[in-house]
Amino acid sequence: MTSKMRSHYCGELSKNEVNQSVTLSGWVHRRRDLGGLIFLQVRDRSGLIQVVIDPDFKELFATAEQLRNEFVIQVKGQVRARPEEMVNSNMTTGEIEVLAQELTILNKAQPPAIPIDENLEASEEQRLKYRYLDLRRPEMAQNLIFRHKVTSAMRRYMDEHGFIDVETPILTKATPEGARDYLVPSRVHKGSFYALPQSPQLFKQLLMMSGFDRYYQIVKCFRDEDLRADRQPEFTQLDIETSFLDQEEVMELMEGLIRHLFKELKNIELPTFPRMSYAEAMERYGSDKPDLRTDMELVTVDELVKDVEFKVFAGPANDEQSRVAALRVPGGAQLSRKQIDEYTNYVGIYGAKGLAWMKVNGQGAENLQSPILKFLGDEKAMTIVEKVGAQEGDIIFFGSDNKRVVADAMGALRLKVAADLELIRDEWKPLWVVDFPMFEEIDGEIHALHHPFTAPKENDAAAVKANPTETLSKAYDMVLNGSEVGGGSIRIHNQDMQETVFDILGIDETEQKEKFGFLLDALKFGCPPHGGLAFGLDRLVMLMVGADSIRDVIAFPKTTTASCPLTQAPSIVEEKQLDELGIQVKKKEQ
Amino acid sequence: MTSKMRSHYCGELSKNEVNQSVTLSGWVHRRRDLGGLIFLQVRDRSGLIQVVIDPDFKELFATAEQLRNEFVIQVKGQVRARPEEMVNSNMTTGEIEVLAQELTILNKAQPPAIPIDENLEASEEQRLKYRYLDLRRPEMAQNLIFRHKVTSAMRRYMDEHGFIDVETPILTKATPEGARDYLVPSRVHKGSFYALPQSPQLFKQLLMMSGFDRYYQIVKCFRDEDLRADRQPEFTQLDIETSFLDQEEVMELMEGLIRHLFKELKNIELPTFPRMSYAEAMERYGSDKPDLRTDMELVTVDELVKDVEFKVFAGPANDEQSRVAALRVPGGAQLSRKQIDEYTNYVGIYGAKGLAWMKVNGQGAENLQSPILKFLGDEKAMTIVEKVGAQEGDIIFFGSDNKRVVADAMGALRLKVAADLELIRDEWKPLWVVDFPMFEEIDGEIHALHHPFTAPKENDAAAVKANPTETLSKAYDMVLNGSEVGGGSIRIHNQDMQETVFDILGIDETEQKEKFGFLLDALKFGCPPHGGLAFGLDRLVMLMVGADSIRDVIAFPKTTTASCPLTQAPSIVEEKQLDELGIQVKKKEQ
Repeated sequence: MTSKMRSHYCGELSKNEVNQSVTLSGWVHRRRDLGGLIFLQVRDRSGLIQVVIDPDFKELFATAEQLRNEFVIQVKGQVRARPEEMVNSNMTTGEIEVLAQELTILNKAQPPAIPIDENLEASEEQRLKYRYLDLRRPEMAQNLIFRHKVTSAMRRYMDEHGFIDVETPILTKATPEGARDYLVPSRVHKGSFYALPQSPQLFKQLLMMSGFDRYYQIVKCFRDEDLRADRQPEFTQLDIETSFLDQEEVMELMEGLIRHLFKELKNIELPTFPRMSYAEAMERYGSDKPDLRTDMELVTVDELVKDVEFKVFAGPANDEQSRVAALRVPGGAQLSRKQIDEYTNYVGIYGAKGLAWMKVNGQGAENLQSPILKFLGDEKAMTIVEKVGAQEGDIIFFGSDNKRVVADAMGALRLKVAADLELIRDEWKPLWVVDFPMFEEIDGEIHALHHPFTAPKENDAAAVKANPTETLSKAYDMVLNGSEVGGGSIRIHNQDMQETVFDILGIDETEQKEKFGFLLDALKFGCPPHGGLAFGLDRLVMLMVGADSIRDVIAFPKTTTASCPLTQAPSIVEEKQLDELGIQVKKKEQ
Repeated sequence: MTSKMRSHYCGELSKNEVNQSVTLSGWVHRRRDLGGLIFLQVRDRSGLIQVVIDPDFKELFATAEQLRNEFVIQVKGQVRARPEEMVNSNMTTGEIEVLAQELTILNKAQPPAIPIDENLEASEEQRLKYRYLDLRRPEMAQNLIFRHKVTSAMRRYMDEHGFIDVETPILTKATPEGARDYLVPSRVHKGSFYALPQSPQLFKQLLMMSGFDRYYQIVKCFRDEDLRADRQPEFTQLDIETSFLDQEEVMELMEGLIRHLFKELKNIELPTFPRMSYAEAMERYGSDKPDLRTDMELVTVDELVKDVEFKVFAGPANDEQSRVAALRVPGGAQLSRKQIDEYTNYVGIYGAKGLAWMKVNGQGAENLQSPILKFLGDEKAMTIVEKVGAQEGDIIFFGSDNKRVVADAMGALRLKVAADLELIRDEWKPLWVVDFPMFEEIDGEIHALHHPFTAPKENDAAAVKANPTETLSKAYDMVLNGSEVGGGSIRIHNQDMQETVFDILGIDETEQKEKFGFLLDALKFGCPPHGGLAFGLDRLVMLMVGADSIRDVIAFPKTTTASCPLTQAPSIVEEKQLDELGIQVKKKEQ
């Protein structure tokens, strides 16, 4: 890695190099003039080193006096140990410094438009506009270097396990994920459009039909959706598909990958990933991606409140589609009325019509405090306290509604309260969620819970057709600390079953043919049993480096309005270009 | 790599496994019924193995009788050596076979829509429509597996040399390469468009300004150009940028990469790459990507024909912008008049107004044969024969015109004749072409020969401005067997120089600001000296595997009209989608 202009990276120097002559190239991170000397912190991607300029070297010193922050320089000098009292334990190179013997200014710099240090004093907009400066911040540089290490380690693991990296097209046809596609007008075929892929799903299945057997790709995917803080219009997946492996084998292989990454890059031995059914995850955590770093759980108390007079509880408790769930919050009795009111508003976002609660201020019913105590009666209240294991100082929240609302509201409340009361342990809690339903019914319409190529656990197409909403699928999601980091399924490899699933979803023959005709065709020509999954790379790296946003692990991300303040994309184009494409911008309606 | 359904890949079995029990999963490649036995060739991505089914296993045999080509099966059985007379030396597994003990049909198959064998009996259109079948052909599978090995080896080399893989955006702004962009309408910012990148050029330069120092990416690039046989609307580059390295260091590092790939993947030691100036390449080979597998060269004979009466020669010979070049073709005297006429037409494509020739049928002027002999005179003719070293049986072709036409026409003729007369050796001839001009003048307008960020060899901006067309650049192209496989340059890292180059190119301040404002800004904030290059991955892999077309090393390529017969992309979209994007398709003019 040495070159004429560099013998060492700044951050890699150590006491081992004392008395050696070194050549460094980098940026002036700081300059201090002290006691007649000039002290520089010189920065490159590896870190910082202190360089000392002695006034005895006259010409050198004159050059150094011109230096300002962010000047690009080359320094030749000798490494020496710092005197003990000057050792800076905050710097990895704090025990040494370089006494400059030659100094060249390679390029000057204006004062940086945003500060280049650990304090994020610039707005997100400014950071993105001057991204090339923002990326000089050691934290950002380290994030991207870590991301590179993750993808390198991924590729090595995949290579070692016989996977082949195959590129699939970016200019393609609408894919079935169901989100909005980005479209690209065709110049040659005017009036026609390519779509950017939401995933390489169909192509990777076709590759299995081609016999490639173990495929992977680290690949950009695209969704034109309204962005939330942790979404980007283009995002990166580790995309995987295999043939001749069953669900258990695929999961083992992929669990092995994630364990390998944590071991190699963070020296962390992850535990074996527990498996949890979708039903259990929804029941206990109100989420299909439960965060297991907190022990709080939803406890169904239907049996206890079925016969109370309190209709808010008794109604849902007696309805199969509904439920009453209690959430015990350790130490939650300290919550003020105002805080509880805020939580009540919070669960309202998820459709809950209220938030019943009960504080356990001490032993016995006389120390319970709750607006619903009078409806429940002391005895019932105490059985609930016992059932959820509440102790003195705890609060119990209640959700009572249809199951979907209870899960959404109480699942979200669980996480919020855990964060507010610092009940989330600093640890890694991975798991697999399995046994998803194939379909869900929303407003009388049947939808696929994953995508329509997911195989049911039931192999008989007629049985699936007879009872679609009871059918479980061979889908699996990998969850880490409450985030879905990967998900996939065993796919349908049988044409009958595929057509049955399309039928159940109300995709008629014309639409089947138009959208997926080539897949249905391909199924006829000898399709192996196959399945795979995809990991969200941005999310995974974000979790591993502990960043707050995926934008901090992407070199050039977009804002929440999908624009780039740096390049000003998207932008107006010339009329001539649109003419060539045979399209025009619609005039705004008056 | 073993799994429940597979203990070995078919093609990896050998005599070492004799007497072992194995489990195979794959496709029925062939079935033959012979002497009461059934012989299967079973195929997976690794190759073929013969499986024998003995009628003594009754149930098994009944299942085997149902088998047709391309059925997906699982076979358990025992490996045994074939009797000596049955050894098939055309198969890598030809010494052994598997005696089946269990057989499961995993999926049935219709007769394949295109034949799955080495004979390409399907049209290109059919092959692309049934690409998933075409990719089952062992040759295609091996091409893609080799491509994977190339990218893996590339990544390992880059990793080992301290390069960091950073992803750059696909939804971005028009880039400066000058080809036509693919546009993506923005839904959020109606009337605005993203462009798909023609290369990550500006982003990789920004990464250098961020201090990343050594960047690489294997990345999709896009050009909406009319396609030739070896072009694709989306293509893949190994894209590289470095800081603090000079031209020589970048070239050495990259030469090392290609030598590493050939050594590791083909066990070929490439020679050190010779360096040739652009001027020399154009003079001797009429091309900036000379194919050195044939020794034929263009020889300038201006001095010899300056004073002949033959104006077709004397004119160009006396004009500085023009030239008369001779191409000696060994053994070319055998060419018929008809063949010569065809070559005359061929050079016409490149603008040549004719093609003079002279056959050397024996010793002495009396054995020269040429329509222009009477204009040249015997003595001149013999000095030319001597100058180009023509022997009995050779032909000499002449190009006389402006230098561009002579280079284009005679350079193309050189390659065509070499191919026709089998004068191209089967060897690897890499080289670097360097010292390109910064600019070229076409019809009085100055254009950049590479892109406008290429640094001149001259560091003084005023000197460049004073004499742009004489200025050479720090650009370098890597050429292999007549194909440009990579190219790049040291970039301008100085704002003055960058503005000077834009000025020379007639890009005014408004346009500079609009198109490259962020780059010019970035140059002010401490830009390191930097440079890089990009390799065309599709082309490189095509050369390495000896394929005829880049389509044979791309899993899902497009046709020459940029369409995909498999997915039917591009296609009509719903009016609703266009409404959301605020665009409409223009009605055809009446």
